[in-house]
Amino acid sequence: MHELRKDILLGRWVAVLSDSKSPTDYRLPFHKNEESSCILCPGRENETPPEITSIRNHGTYPNSPGWWVRVLPSFKPVFQIEGDLGRRGVGIYDKMNSIGANEIIVESPEHNVRPEDMGLEHMIRVITLYRHRIADLEKDSRIRYILIYKNSGKEAGELFSHPVSYLMATPVIPKMVKDELDNAKQYYSYKERCIFCDIIREELRVGERIILETRNFIAFCPYAAQFPFVSWLIPTRHYCAFHEITYEEIEDLGLVLMTVLKKLRKIFNDLPFNYFIHTAPNMVPRRNHWHTLGEDFHWHLEIMPRLIRTSGFEWGSGFYILPTSPENAAKYLREVG
Amino acid sequence: MHELRKDILLGRWVAVLSDSKSPTDYRLPFHKNEESSCILCPGRENETPPEITSIRNHGTYPNSPGWWVRVLPSFKPVFQIEGDLGRRGVGIYDKMNSIGANEIIVESPEHNVRPEDMGLEHMIRVITLYRHRIADLEKDSRIRYILIYKNSGKEAGELFSHPVSYLMATPVIPKMVKDELDNAKQYYSYKERCIFCDIIREELRVGERIILETRNFIAFCPYAAQFPFVSWLIPTRHYCAFHEITYEEIEDLGLVLMTVLKKLRKIFNDLPFNYFIHTAPNMVPRRNHWHTLGEDFHWHLEIMPRLIRTSGFEWGSGFYILPTSPENAAKYLREVG
Repeated sequence: MHELRKDILLGRWVAVLSDSKSPTDYRLPFHKNEESSCILCPGRENETPPEITSIRNHGTYPNSPGWWVRVLPSFKPVFQIEGDLGRRGVGIYDKMNSIGANEIIVESPEHNVRPEDMGLEHMIRVITLYRHRIADLEKDSRIRYILIYKNSGKEAGELFSHPVSYLMATPVIPKMVKDELDNAKQYYSYKERCIFCDIIREELRVGERIILETRNFIAFCPYAAQFPFVSWLIPTRHYCAFHEITYEEIEDLGLVLMTVLKKLRKIFNDLPFNYFIHTAPNMVPRRNHWHTLGEDFHWHLEIMPRLIRTSGFEWGSGFYILPTSPENAAKYLREVG
Repeated sequence: MHELRKDILLGRWVAVLSDSKSPTDYRLPFHKNEESSCILCPGRENETPPEITSIRNHGTYPNSPGWWVRVLPSFKPVFQIEGDLGRRGVGIYDKMNSIGANEIIVESPEHNVRPEDMGLEHMIRVITLYRHRIADLEKDSRIRYILIYKNSGKEAGELFSHPVSYLMATPVIPKMVKDELDNAKQYYSYKERCIFCDIIREELRVGERIILETRNFIAFCPYAAQFPFVSWLIPTRHYCAFHEITYEEIEDLGLVLMTVLKKLRKIFNDLPFNYFIHTAPNMVPRRNHWHTLGEDFHWHLEIMPRLIRTSGFEWGSGFYILPTSPENAAKYLREVG
């Protein structure tokens, strides 16, 4: 019989099908890389909005070649940094100004490189800039949340063929994050333990959903994942805010991220995926904060392969069907080269 | 400036872009109808699972031609009707058996007909069977929720080229519905009024998001819709359970649904979309029911055009970006032929 499982964090149920699909059962669209001239390649820095920051060769100047990783404001920002929040009612509804930030993190000067092929030294630079940007924007008291994410493949919302990640800073805590925070807090109130630390201990104890384990991180397929082959990367040390990551942990995260992406590509060849970092919301004055001094939240990175289409069932219910069990997905990922 | 709006029901924020896109700005995939032989067409009734019920010509027999609308069990059910719930813990997690029902509502004997072209008399039969199936399954105390939905177009999860809707009966209240119920209840506790009735009054007062209004229904684009051109159909009479719909209301709903779908097709030609009905969960013993005798919930039908792709931003945050404002979408829909 198929099995229903409850996502311990979100309270969401998923169905795990008993006749677990193998990787070859998924039909993936073919992606061609358009090799037209790219505005994000070195040499066209003056055609993009001026860079916010970069990691670059000594002796080279901002907005000129010589960069390794480069952060730009979005070409068409949804959120803008200037202005006040202007939170107000309109009839029975609520609205506010679109204050925040949209940034593009250009991950490499190489047009066709994939994150897993960048080399560890380069991946460390990318993650270091993730941390820098969050630490910088966190100072803005109007900003409540900062999300780092990546879209790889057209099916996953990719817009540039050049490798990029994105940063979106919002003046509200987005619903998905708020649900995680609320449920983690509720668990903490009841158990007086971090739900994420409990998940790590349980996954290590059971073992069958673990993809790999390093000194500072574990990668695993969550018990009640939303989609097949969803993989979480989580630090074994408890801390809520991504930007408190140490240098040693950055190195380790880079290695784990590259390894899991390499494994996914080995299994699925040209796989569309997203990943995103769920970190704690920005600290705000005590009256309105969501977490108890960070004891009840624990940052993590979620890799979301886009293998299946969503239908009216998923959109109408928020209930998901998993054609491959997390145990089988983890086994494929563990065993592949 | 772009504007952020809060979904009054779900507490979810969306960004409404100021440079509102027009319908021609959306690029839609071309759909071809595969004309291969279809197992759902009349004459092949013995190749499908035996029908659960049908509306058919007098003098014709179940599982033979002569039907107008026919309900079948799913070919590959996720949920099964036999067995007990078997709710239990596994380590720190929760699981249960996949008890419930998956049904296919074959909307017409005609292979290529679209819902908006079926004719009102036929649409009434389809909606009547929606009601019958919900009323029947509601008697099963193991079933907590019954979702009726439709997937039209491959991008929207369509599997059969023959026109069908689906029914999914689950032993838990799905998260999206639970969120609606919880928030509607919270609103009711505070205001002592149904949030949906308040939304209807507000939309009628403001008018700019109304698509059309009949004796028993309004169709409108919600203030903080998740996607562009999302349209809600809601009865103006307050009642929580779809299957308490009257004959007159069925007729009216059929007319409104066909009209709105016709308008969407006029604007977008071959538009992938989903629709689903959010009705109250099944009544259960008092200790565990979600609504206050139905005063705080109000069923509705949501039409969700699939015009844009989701990226890591939406999946990571639960925050959505609306490239067309609900006011503009409603204007296009009001004005089209």
